[in-house]
Amino acid sequence: MADENAEELQESIDSLGASLVKIKSEIRQLKKDGAPADKVKGEVTKMKALDAELKALQEQLAGPKFDQQGLQDVLLRRMIVVPSFEIHGGVSGLFDFGPIGTSLKDNIVSEWKKHFVLKERMLQVEATCMTSEPVLRASGHVERFTDLMVKDESTGFCYRADKLLEDHIENLLEASPGMDKEEKAELERVFRQADAYSPEELGALISERFKITAPDTGNVLSQPFPFNLMFKTLIGPEGTNVGFLRPETAQGIFVNFKRLLDYNYGKLPFAAAQIGLGFRNEIAPRAGLLRVREFTMAEIEHFVHPEEKDHPSFAAVADLELSLFPEDNQMTTGKLVKMTAGAAVAAGVINNQTLAYFMARTHLFLERIGIDMSRVRFRQHLKTEMAHYSSDCWDAEIHMSYGWTECVGHADRAAYDLRVHSEATNNDLRAIRQVDPPRVEEYAKISPNKKALGKAFKRDAGLISAAVAKLSMADALALGEKLKADGSAPVLVEDGRSFDIASEMLTIEQATRTVHSESFYPNVIEPSFGIGRILYAVLEHTFYLRGAAQGEEKAIEKGSVERTAFRFNPRVAPVKCGVCPVRKSDDQEAIVLQLVDDLVEAGIYATADVSSTAIGKKYSRFDEVGIPFCLTADEHSQADASVTLRERDSQDQIRAPISEALELVRDLCAERTTFEQLIAKYGKFTA
Amino acid sequence: MADENAEELQESIDSLGASLVKIKSEIRQLKKDGAPADKVKGEVTKMKALDAELKALQEQLAGPKFDQQGLQDVLLRRMIVVPSFEIHGGVSGLFDFGPIGTSLKDNIVSEWKKHFVLKERMLQVEATCMTSEPVLRASGHVERFTDLMVKDESTGFCYRADKLLEDHIENLLEASPGMDKEEKAELERVFRQADAYSPEELGALISERFKITAPDTGNVLSQPFPFNLMFKTLIGPEGTNVGFLRPETAQGIFVNFKRLLDYNYGKLPFAAAQIGLGFRNEIAPRAGLLRVREFTMAEIEHFVHPEEKDHPSFAAVADLELSLFPEDNQMTTGKLVKMTAGAAVAAGVINNQTLAYFMARTHLFLERIGIDMSRVRFRQHLKTEMAHYSSDCWDAEIHMSYGWTECVGHADRAAYDLRVHSEATNNDLRAIRQVDPPRVEEYAKISPNKKALGKAFKRDAGLISAAVAKLSMADALALGEKLKADGSAPVLVEDGRSFDIASEMLTIEQATRTVHSESFYPNVIEPSFGIGRILYAVLEHTFYLRGAAQGEEKAIEKGSVERTAFRFNPRVAPVKCGVCPVRKSDDQEAIVLQLVDDLVEAGIYATADVSSTAIGKKYSRFDEVGIPFCLTADEHSQADASVTLRERDSQDQIRAPISEALELVRDLCAERTTFEQLIAKYGKFTA
Repeated sequence: MADENAEELQESIDSLGASLVKIKSEIRQLKKDGAPADKVKGEVTKMKALDAELKALQEQLAGPKFDQQGLQDVLLRRMIVVPSFEIHGGVSGLFDFGPIGTSLKDNIVSEWKKHFVLKERMLQVEATCMTSEPVLRASGHVERFTDLMVKDESTGFCYRADKLLEDHIENLLEASPGMDKEEKAELERVFRQADAYSPEELGALISERFKITAPDTGNVLSQPFPFNLMFKTLIGPEGTNVGFLRPETAQGIFVNFKRLLDYNYGKLPFAAAQIGLGFRNEIAPRAGLLRVREFTMAEIEHFVHPEEKDHPSFAAVADLELSLFPEDNQMTTGKLVKMTAGAAVAAGVINNQTLAYFMARTHLFLERIGIDMSRVRFRQHLKTEMAHYSSDCWDAEIHMSYGWTECVGHADRAAYDLRVHSEATNNDLRAIRQVDPPRVEEYAKISPNKKALGKAFKRDAGLISAAVAKLSMADALALGEKLKADGSAPVLVEDGRSFDIASEMLTIEQATRTVHSESFYPNVIEPSFGIGRILYAVLEHTFYLRGAAQGEEKAIEKGSVERTAFRFNPRVAPVKCGVCPVRKSDDQEAIVLQLVDDLVEAGIYATADVSSTAIGKKYSRFDEVGIPFCLTADEHSQADASVTLRERDSQDQIRAPISEALELVRDLCAERTTFEQLIAKYGKFTA
Repeated sequence: MADENAEELQESIDSLGASLVKIKSEIRQLKKDGAPADKVKGEVTKMKALDAELKALQEQLAGPKFDQQGLQDVLLRRMIVVPSFEIHGGVSGLFDFGPIGTSLKDNIVSEWKKHFVLKERMLQVEATCMTSEPVLRASGHVERFTDLMVKDESTGFCYRADKLLEDHIENLLEASPGMDKEEKAELERVFRQADAYSPEELGALISERFKITAPDTGNVLSQPFPFNLMFKTLIGPEGTNVGFLRPETAQGIFVNFKRLLDYNYGKLPFAAAQIGLGFRNEIAPRAGLLRVREFTMAEIEHFVHPEEKDHPSFAAVADLELSLFPEDNQMTTGKLVKMTAGAAVAAGVINNQTLAYFMARTHLFLERIGIDMSRVRFRQHLKTEMAHYSSDCWDAEIHMSYGWTECVGHADRAAYDLRVHSEATNNDLRAIRQVDPPRVEEYAKISPNKKALGKAFKRDAGLISAAVAKLSMADALALGEKLKADGSAPVLVEDGRSFDIASEMLTIEQATRTVHSESFYPNVIEPSFGIGRILYAVLEHTFYLRGAAQGEEKAIEKGSVERTAFRFNPRVAPVKCGVCPVRKSDDQEAIVLQLVDDLVEAGIYATADVSSTAIGKKYSRFDEVGIPFCLTADEHSQADASVTLRERDSQDQIRAPISEALELVRDLCAERTTFEQLIAKYGKFTA
């Protein structure tokens, strides 16, 4: 669907499909009517042509097929990401990162920290994964963090109910390309809503309308029921203290809000950030790295006064064009809108500046780490999928071979989180705002005569004062009037009793006062990043296959792996520089090892390959893990103190003095220079 | 015990204690005998003097009292480390890091990565915390990762049995300073062995010998029983797949060994490293940050041929002096030995070069991040505390206010881990070594006549061949001889049957062959770092209190906090530079904000304080979180484009051009210059 003409293509496919249905029925009729064989044959030829055209259009719509198997092969072969404890049989949804994957992830996280935490002076915290039950009960996770699941009644195996429905509809649509347009639209509507149905609705769809059975066995399925996705355990040996592994890092920030506010000397707005693990006990994880049970998240909670959601730095991003998929368009045209952040806020498409600011910053971050921005969109949550307390939500979705995938959420969570934790703990998590200029307001000034009250009502005097203090301004003034007019008035206290108060015991008059400060629950704008998904998007968007370049064919052994590469930019590239000799020689090896030492000492992740492998194969190995630059010592290096420097994607080389090599690589990695500039300076080198 | 004269002091204390016991008994006797009051009084005066002297010596032995409460106050007040979800009541053993704590931890981890992973080209991996049961069953954790616990029979509250015994003995020793020397030594022996007793032994000590009851209630305690310290949960919705949170990161490396070896192109030795969370469901966590339920570890698994434990880079550390506490000394003198790494290996004190190499590298690392090295020792494990498969273990212990604390383990784990995972999974985790030069060896060459065997024995022929192949060399040759001599011989196959083989069906002769390679289980040397404990040691070792400096008294508000500081070195300092105006002014604020932007843009963690707080108080706040440098704009800054630069510990200042400020801070942080050198260049500045 990344294709700009997707809609037109779809219309052609639909119309071809309808023609195909028509011609097939005509052929049946001709046969039935005993029409001449050549006439039937002519129609069949037409039908086959139509069918071929239809298939071609469908492939075009699907886009160039991504070599997912090729990517998976490299991920395993080079130990970039591998299934956890696979020698023990593994468990779906758990993956380990090897050296390349770990470094790639570290670099993405490090860029994130620079881009968000450091630049925006966020308060970074690190809370525990292990979380005691009251926290997640207050946040609503114990009750509501569930997916609907159905069980194979015979084997006990479980399926996620909405995914089962989605798969079933996908199969129906694929199997009948010429389906009636209205029927198709209806199926697509059901597909889109799959995760929004109630258990009863979903049950009716699965067992009655579509009669879906267990995919693995064909057995009858149970009715859908909610399954809590949190991993549960017991803290301490007594067996009474329930703990969960956090499903998100956000709660660790909310429960620390008061301390964070103090740390910030009581000032708002401020943002706290956290990078750490989240855990979800997915019902049946699939889709490789995209749906896993343990994952790294990076979350920001930006606390702000509910009426002050303009952002001081908004001007810096107001002109940035974003690819938006607003709710309206999802329900009508299905089209993306290109709009600047500024225009989107002005037009009310995005609720407020702060939300739009973070969306723009996310856009810049994704671009920075090498995501193909033509495959990124911001999709607004439908009213039906948004939490009741949220005022606006936008997911940054990245298109991958699995389709559009939510990678970053941007939610305006209003005051929900701080309020529920305040209420659950009796800790006041409100902030205080100076009212500037101070506001003058009218109020009912209550002046009790404590001595008289005490004398008349003894220990009940307190109850009476409290009851009066609780009155609304209008009621208090009315009471004051009555006391003045009648000389006495009844006051109803908390426990239901009524006391007659004499006018000399209490005076209530309208007065004015100056308000200098007020308490409020800050609102929260939350950008939440799934680092693992973003990492996988970087892998897919930078992965490519190329033919052997001139002069290197010989080096590639017959039957060896295909030549794939990752187009990582130097910022996130797991290893920045490969160093190797052209062939095994002590001279060349000494130069190589010294260069690697120098690079590492300078903080540049470098790796040497001094094996006797052919040079072309060494380059292939470096390219395969996306190393952007390579220094090579050859037979002239000793004599003229120079090495060659190769760029991964162009495969161009230059020759430069050894004494300059470190600085060149450092400048390339820091983007202080480009390889084109180096070619201009040193000339292109050919062996 | 950090005091060098600890032993002498202890002897004086013991002898004073004995005198005290004696004089007390004499006074009792005098009173009993009705001695004159002034004589008794004289003796009592003597006794009191003795008692005071004893107390003074005890305090001297304990060393200058560390202001633990002061540290705890700062940790909470500045949100460096705080209890997790404290507004919900908290759970012991779980802590969150605030902005300063998070940054300090990140910096320590980052130094660790540079010092170990990058410099030594280790293969860093990141495995999941969630671990399926078979992995931890194979490693022995399911069965043996336990502590002994006792339960209050009435309340159900649990205690760690060994700690209960230790506390009891500590109280006994404190309560009776003049205790009989032999009795005291015996108690101390029991104390030291507390965690090595069997449940039965510990039970006898607790309930019979010391008659210990529950500290909180005085209730009777249960017999000690083992409690597994792993957090247990269920993976997936079926409820059949048990998972544990990993208690160490090491297993994630062992189960990936084959992929790591492939990644390293089959070559040994190599080291893999992992930084990540570990979880232990401690029975009753105490000691603040030192015994927690969730913690960051950094582990290295160095794989090496069992007979090749020399280390290629050992020469670089051979002359480094280490503070060693070998097993012998623990059992006899109780004294540390200063020895170079080289001498320790040569003398057989440390088992091999690789183990000593890592101990030395650990020493350098701890020094690098600011640990007081006079308070670090390497304690060898006693034979009784070492795992049966280990050949040598040394803990780097750091002395803190809680006493000597294990912070880094260094274990030679032999081939244990790879062997158990191989056996549990039927995956061969052996490596292959080239035999160079190739070894010529004799063997029994078996030449079966397959056709004849097949004809004679049909489907049993395979069984017969397998039985012959399994024979030892001697048995095979004997069979060959018998066949030659007798023309036939019986062969016993797997299922117990015997077959008579004719000589023409099988020839077995002695021959020689050349062995080019052999399989073996690599041995593992494991340095394992508790990052949280090391972090806490950095906090304690750098924390100090100082009086108000001249000219700053006024700035410190009456009744405000005491002036504490952390002497963090710039490498680990959470924030590198504070920037502030002397007083609130638009000019000064503009300079400050520009400087902070520039510092942050250059990747230097900087913070601004543009509040109207007095300058002395701002410095105190910066010092309190250990910010090493501070740039201040004052009333001259605008006119002469200069700012002052202040160093935290000396509180000295220089004045330098604004245009040079960023570079000066950068150079100070990178240790390219010292503050003394800057004073020499710019002169000391006084306001």
